[in-house]
Amino acid sequence: MATKKKKGTAKKKELPIILVVNDDGITAPGIMNLVEAVKGLGRIVVVAPDKPQSGMGHAITIGYPLRLQRVHVMEGIETWSCSGTPVDCVKLAVDKVLHRKPDICISGINHGANHSINVIYSGTMSAAIEASIENIPSAGFSLLDYSLEADFTGARKYARMIVETMLSKKADKHLCLNVNIPTGDVDLIKGVKVCKQAYAKYEEEFEERKDPSGKKYFWLTGEFLNLEKSKETDVWALKNNYVSIVPVQYDLTNYAIKKKIEKDYTW
Amino acid sequence: MATKKKKGTAKKKELPIILVVNDDGITAPGIMNLVEAVKGLGRIVVVAPDKPQSGMGHAITIGYPLRLQRVHVMEGIETWSCSGTPVDCVKLAVDKVLHRKPDICISGINHGANHSINVIYSGTMSAAIEASIENIPSAGFSLLDYSLEADFTGARKYARMIVETMLSKKADKHLCLNVNIPTGDVDLIKGVKVCKQAYAKYEEEFEERKDPSGKKYFWLTGEFLNLEKSKETDVWALKNNYVSIVPVQYDLTNYAIKKKIEKDYTW
Repeated sequence: MATKKKKGTAKKKELPIILVVNDDGITAPGIMNLVEAVKGLGRIVVVAPDKPQSGMGHAITIGYPLRLQRVHVMEGIETWSCSGTPVDCVKLAVDKVLHRKPDICISGINHGANHSINVIYSGTMSAAIEASIENIPSAGFSLLDYSLEADFTGARKYARMIVETMLSKKADKHLCLNVNIPTGDVDLIKGVKVCKQAYAKYEEEFEERKDPSGKKYFWLTGEFLNLEKSKETDVWALKNNYVSIVPVQYDLTNYAIKKKIEKDYTW
Repeated sequence: MATKKKKGTAKKKELPIILVVNDDGITAPGIMNLVEAVKGLGRIVVVAPDKPQSGMGHAITIGYPLRLQRVHVMEGIETWSCSGTPVDCVKLAVDKVLHRKPDICISGINHGANHSINVIYSGTMSAAIEASIENIPSAGFSLLDYSLEADFTGARKYARMIVETMLSKKADKHLCLNVNIPTGDVDLIKGVKVCKQAYAKYEEEFEERKDPSGKKYFWLTGEFLNLEKSKETDVWALKNNYVSIVPVQYDLTNYAIKKKIEKDYTW
């Protein structure tokens, strides 16, 4: 009797469009796993960089032209390779591939963590943030394993669950989730925890070397330091084998300091 | 009699170290003007990209080595050219040039606006944000004029005033200011206004062209749309000939949405 009560439900429901992007590049196992994770939930379209773009943050390509090419790397999935950054991929996907906004944009699955301050350097998360600026609900997924041979079983399970929830809830258009998933046995993951971004950062040191002609060069390296012990943070959640979800914003205004300097400073 | 009251003031006071960075590159007039603006306020050290890095956001160089070279482009000023991004410049300056944290980091003066959502794409502002992550008070300065021949008189005046204020106040270590300066006659600038980041963005369209071999490529282009009419925003302030100052944060947690999804979502 449901068809009588709900007018129009007999009609073929239009599938939501799921835009899939990443920063590790179109051939990374992580993006294949993300596509696998959301199969059946909508019309999947992949637009991803043609080369690794880790650490590209919110970079966009200015002053250089971009290339976009249809490729066939995933059976039965519309897939495009882009010469630009992760953020360029989102912009190009909307304007030149989909010719409309997708219903959701998902990014990843990143090979390696994007918790705490990493969110700000991450191409994976910047692509998701770009979507949310454009009124497209989004989520970036990262697995705490840098290896190309990582086991994505747990990441796939939670990515699917989170995307299903977002689609069923008609998520806020500016919703952007930073999801990190612990490694190891999926059955040992305790569930999902909504968190704040930990105040944790890298104590950087550049390793100094000499090239064959004797000229100095530097490699970025460093030690990760968690400076916040609160149980509210993503770092705490991950250490305790939860999937961490941090809702992320693109309004960078520091309202607390704004109030303070309006009162204390004279210019 | 002041020397008697304040113990130790007779000693030579150590000059504050002012790190100057930018995203337009070491030879841009904007950075020369910023150095000019703060002369006499401290020991100035410049570390800037060896080429334009506009729109690089918070990108860092991963997987490639970096070069750092002493150059002589500004009379009497210690100047270094770096092969990386604006954020790389800040990291390298601390670890390999200064071997300590500077007292303040200033970035710019950018050739072109960095108000509203531009803050997130801006290499100028990302360098300043990187400093604030590292407990270095910082400010990014941008002039609303893209031209290389822009008149920086007003920008210099306000940059100096703001840096003087920050140094005299012993600014909060995480203080990061996004300062935009109107163009035109400096005497017509009405003063400084502390603002929030406007919800304004670009309606993007990529211009499609063909290369000599007939293959498609795309140029990023678009129209700027201000979607927020409030008088609290940086866009409003600039339109009304104020210098806009938006305090910026690196904690991207969206606490309002965090509360909502903790209540409404089940995973």
